[in-house]
Amino acid sequence: MLIPEGFLFSGISCGIKEENKIDLGLIFSSEKLTVWGMFTTNTVKAVPVVLSRKFIKEEQIHGVVANSGIANACTGEEGFKRALTLLKKIAEKLNISYKNLLPASTGVIGEQLPLEKILPHIDTLISNLSNQNYIQFAKAIMTTDTFPKVVFRKTEEGIIILGIAKGAGMIAPNMATMLAFILTDARVSKDYLKKQFPKIVEQSFNRISVDGDISTNDAVYMLCSNLKEVKNWKNFNKLCLEVAKELAYLIIKDGEGASKIIKIIIKGAKTKKDAKIFATSVANSLLVKTAFYGEDPNWGRIFSALGKNGIKFNPEEIEIYLNGIPWIANLKPVKDENKIKEEMKKNEIELLIKFKQGKLSYEILTTDLTEEYIKINAHYRT
Amino acid sequence: MLIPEGFLFSGISCGIKEENKIDLGLIFSSEKLTVWGMFTTNTVKAVPVVLSRKFIKEEQIHGVVANSGIANACTGEEGFKRALTLLKKIAEKLNISYKNLLPASTGVIGEQLPLEKILPHIDTLISNLSNQNYIQFAKAIMTTDTFPKVVFRKTEEGIIILGIAKGAGMIAPNMATMLAFILTDARVSKDYLKKQFPKIVEQSFNRISVDGDISTNDAVYMLCSNLKEVKNWKNFNKLCLEVAKELAYLIIKDGEGASKIIKIIIKGAKTKKDAKIFATSVANSLLVKTAFYGEDPNWGRIFSALGKNGIKFNPEEIEIYLNGIPWIANLKPVKDENKIKEEMKKNEIELLIKFKQGKLSYEILTTDLTEEYIKINAHYRT
Repeated sequence: MLIPEGFLFSGISCGIKEENKIDLGLIFSSEKLTVWGMFTTNTVKAVPVVLSRKFIKEEQIHGVVANSGIANACTGEEGFKRALTLLKKIAEKLNISYKNLLPASTGVIGEQLPLEKILPHIDTLISNLSNQNYIQFAKAIMTTDTFPKVVFRKTEEGIIILGIAKGAGMIAPNMATMLAFILTDARVSKDYLKKQFPKIVEQSFNRISVDGDISTNDAVYMLCSNLKEVKNWKNFNKLCLEVAKELAYLIIKDGEGASKIIKIIIKGAKTKKDAKIFATSVANSLLVKTAFYGEDPNWGRIFSALGKNGIKFNPEEIEIYLNGIPWIANLKPVKDENKIKEEMKKNEIELLIKFKQGKLSYEILTTDLTEEYIKINAHYRT
Repeated sequence: MLIPEGFLFSGISCGIKEENKIDLGLIFSSEKLTVWGMFTTNTVKAVPVVLSRKFIKEEQIHGVVANSGIANACTGEEGFKRALTLLKKIAEKLNISYKNLLPASTGVIGEQLPLEKILPHIDTLISNLSNQNYIQFAKAIMTTDTFPKVVFRKTEEGIIILGIAKGAGMIAPNMATMLAFILTDARVSKDYLKKQFPKIVEQSFNRISVDGDISTNDAVYMLCSNLKEVKNWKNFNKLCLEVAKELAYLIIKDGEGASKIIKIIIKGAKTKKDAKIFATSVANSLLVKTAFYGEDPNWGRIFSALGKNGIKFNPEEIEIYLNGIPWIANLKPVKDENKIKEEMKKNEIELLIKFKQGKLSYEILTTDLTEEYIKINAHYRT
């Protein structure tokens, strides 16, 4: 099995979520880990985000305590008190300081952690620790996710990189209601992580969008147990990025109510910023997303979305390709639209939009928008 | 009847839309009108927007030619040729220059005006002109609208202000797929219109949002026949704003698939810009809109939306009121949530969010987001 050495996992049910679903998870290393993290840009930051940001800079880290069901956001002083109580109870049993554990939560905003339900299960949480229980941990962070998200890679030197994430709804570029943990047994310095990890996140978790909303609880971590020497750094970085991109892809694949994954590629923009704005405008346009859902080659909506931010371009210069097939050039369909319509029925779609303003490009993954998204979000408390 | 003097109206079916729906409209004044207009900020501007912007600045205006079904956007040179042919044919019959008519279109982007269907009906369009046919004109600009939108006001001096609009989907602040015409028989100078009309638009049509998309075809006009002297300017301005606000309200009321109208009011922001960003973030949040649809008092989503742009504030200082009832203060529900839940069942909801950062406020109208919106936009070509 591809489990990085030095990590133990656990995931149990405390009754925070209904139907005895697994809702409390622990990752633990008896030796201190090298860790870095990136967090939501939302002004309203959940309690675990505030605490983790602090601990990660100042303290030795030995693991993660994560729960789903309750976000512990907008919970004021009482929210901090409860999070710290939970951390202290677990840390005590593990013989470490509570500041050695990074808290992470996801779920409903504005409600308090039900400690009366959680605390009686802490002994079980710890006694279940095992290097095999990573799936239980992955389940412990699921909310509207329909499957646990776990990805592995192994380098030639035998270094393992394991990624675990949750996502599904409220996903926007800049990491919205998303938790992701990339664990490796490589020896990595904190300075290296600080420099390298943001690059990985920028190319993976910040390139996905389900609904343009940004959560209070996003956090993405890399945790290294330092047990194996990296020889080929280039390959190691490449595999870390692969793990992050694959997790991001799984989050989009499990996007709330989504029936299709759409990769939007902008090429030929004047600046990187323009390329990003074009890609994001198309990715977040409800009219584009519903057109894809309806399998309707309504390319006018793409042009309308490209123009909505007022960046100047000549629409006649734009070329659009769908799954590699020329679709639009000079403001006209290149071929019979039925071919494109046929292609739109696929579950994975690549939409390439070529400008002639420069050489810069940007890529983003998005989903279509379906009645199911509305149902999930009108009737489920996230 | 409250019809401003000096205007004739017509609306007929040419077969641009299916089922013999009315799809071509004309407003005509034999005397020249005083006119001003405001247009979409989208980089991709439809042919009629490009032409009208030019004519309105340089030419005498005698009326409007409007069609629905085809937007005449992303249609290149051929689109201009067809629009001009149509204007010329109509102008010729009216004994004016084609530059005296403002074109307006709404409908599918990327398809050409079917002149072969339209031109044979021009004689009928003109022979139907009458001061009573404003409803036919209002119908001629409908797309996914479920009712024609017409509003009247009369001043004490007997001046009439008549507003006609279409909207429904693709509505965002800054006027998205929206056409609106405010007609009056008041004597108004062009300089006055240039100064006053943007203020009216800012407080009405730019304060509504259905889906955050901005169209290629938005245009809002004020047309004055100059037959009656204004004595009380303050009252005249007030009634013009009322007409514009009521049209904006009707557009939101008819928002695609909407089951509720939600007025979002921000108070106590540090700057006007902050207040606008807070209001817009809440108005455009899919999670807030689906929560209102589900009648779920999930206030955490409101906080999350307020914070998503990174403007700093202390969440504990925020007070939220729903239909005047205190809902949230100090990050806690003030009362039993059942009262709020009951209130959310109403079709018209006022959400007041009070900050304590300053004295500035902003208001915006939005809708909830329903399965019906998805159905309309997945399976209807707009």
